[in-house]
Amino acid sequence: MTFPRSVLLRDVSLRDGLQDEAPVSTEVKLALFEALVAAGIRELELTSFVRPDRVPAMADADALCAATDGADVIRWGLVLNRRGAERALAAGLTHLQYVISVSDTHSRHNAGAGTDDAIAAFEAAAVPAIDAGATVEMTLSTAFGCPYEQRIDPARVVDVARRVAAAGATSIGLADTIGVAVPTEVAALTQAVADAVGDDASIGAHLHDTRGLAIANGLAALEHGATRLDAAVGGLGGCPFAPGASGNVAIEDLAHGLDGMGIDTGLSIDRLVDAARLACDAVGRPVASAVGIAGPRFA
Amino acid sequence: MTFPRSVLLRDVSLRDGLQDEAPVSTEVKLALFEALVAAGIRELELTSFVRPDRVPAMADADALCAATDGADVIRWGLVLNRRGAERALAAGLTHLQYVISVSDTHSRHNAGAGTDDAIAAFEAAAVPAIDAGATVEMTLSTAFGCPYEQRIDPARVVDVARRVAAAGATSIGLADTIGVAVPTEVAALTQAVADAVGDDASIGAHLHDTRGLAIANGLAALEHGATRLDAAVGGLGGCPFAPGASGNVAIEDLAHGLDGMGIDTGLSIDRLVDAARLACDAVGRPVASAVGIAGPRFA
Repeated sequence: MTFPRSVLLRDVSLRDGLQDEAPVSTEVKLALFEALVAAGIRELELTSFVRPDRVPAMADADALCAATDGADVIRWGLVLNRRGAERALAAGLTHLQYVISVSDTHSRHNAGAGTDDAIAAFEAAAVPAIDAGATVEMTLSTAFGCPYEQRIDPARVVDVARRVAAAGATSIGLADTIGVAVPTEVAALTQAVADAVGDDASIGAHLHDTRGLAIANGLAALEHGATRLDAAVGGLGGCPFAPGASGNVAIEDLAHGLDGMGIDTGLSIDRLVDAARLACDAVGRPVASAVGIAGPRFA
Repeated sequence: MTFPRSVLLRDVSLRDGLQDEAPVSTEVKLALFEALVAAGIRELELTSFVRPDRVPAMADADALCAATDGADVIRWGLVLNRRGAERALAAGLTHLQYVISVSDTHSRHNAGAGTDDAIAAFEAAAVPAIDAGATVEMTLSTAFGCPYEQRIDPARVVDVARRVAAAGATSIGLADTIGVAVPTEVAALTQAVADAVGDDASIGAHLHDTRGLAIANGLAALEHGATRLDAAVGGLGGCPFAPGASGNVAIEDLAHGLDGMGIDTGLSIDRLVDAARLACDAVGRPVASAVGIAGPRFA
């Protein structure tokens, strides 16, 4: 087993973890932000610039950006289009995360446009954002499977990745949006995308633990070219309408496992668990992480 | 990633899964046994021949053996000593699973004798059992860590494995009794034990999911010489005094993941989930498996 010596774990609690929950106050988000930074988090998804009527939990994007200005952490803002990018830049963010669904059907349902149109829109939006000094990356949702189309052709994902990297995305996130990937698929797709984009973009994996495979999938990604994994404290991000269904892979479980394997994450497990308790209390859910329940393996 | 084409998943629900629970009736155990066989299970831990006052949940060992006689499945009986082996043989079992703790301190606490004495007792007990026609295997508990000694020297595990294989154990089970192993450790120890015992014994891994790594650990074992994984429906086997702490890796999650990777287990996921519901209802716990909650990945 060959892994990178160090891995970037990007926390997505504040965005992906909270977006489908009843809105929590900006004050609580700030407390969580501080707890994450105290745990050693170097990059995080802070918020998204989407329609507040569609995602009320993210309605305080501007206030959250203002209140965290100057913090020693890279703050990513999720944007879906040019207007979102302009809002993010106006709010002071310099790191913009675009999302495109590689499933045409999912893209039409979720973003109102097919994948090709979404790529064209990204190409048009990325240029001015990059010109304005922003770092732009792309998350490819439904990269391993789609609720409408089920299996997605890996060649299609590779093609989309190559095009968005050519358009300026400095990192490609491969998202297992509905938690259907298995390790061999993650290994193969990560390798294929890494080979396709070469030095143009780094590779991240965004894995949901819906079927218990997120950690194994993350390790497969790291063995095949990914240098970043997304994760949320306490496994936040489960669909609120499917009680018990897991959300994002829990960052404290991932950090604990990598730490045991001698892979540096720069994170404090204990402080991540503190942050998980804070976040899960705020949304009224139990901490859904193994290490949050059992504690670290050796004292 | 290189895996065996097929993997034996041995169900341990009836023994490891139920041993620390309030006793369930022999009738319910028989229903679970039938459900497991219907799901395609080829080998299972049926019961243990230990002191009924110590493990009341296993007090019906003789009745359970009699009632399942002739079933088309390999029934393993756990034994700790010569007397247990004699009881198992008298009950009609032909497959005896011995257990030794490779942690000397844990062995003294749990079995009243250090590891070396336990090995000597096994050597003495194995001969007559094998002479009587039994297949004998050995599970090495605390192989990856111990509640008393914490880390266990892998060289010690390899040494014990070599000795018990030489004494007639046809399979060596490496047990992560307290759920502390990480994939790189599992890979290294599995490979070292496989190299040490060669063709004398096959290798199995018995993994608890206490810290969320059991599936990743199982895959690491399979990549490095293991051909069998132990698992329980619904993740049964958590310590009843630590609510929420995971027990055995859930067999339906493991089977589902392996199936997705094109590795044959011969099992029906849906029927495993049926068995999980039956077993978890019987002990009054929720089904603690991802696939039991979310369902399989593709219809």
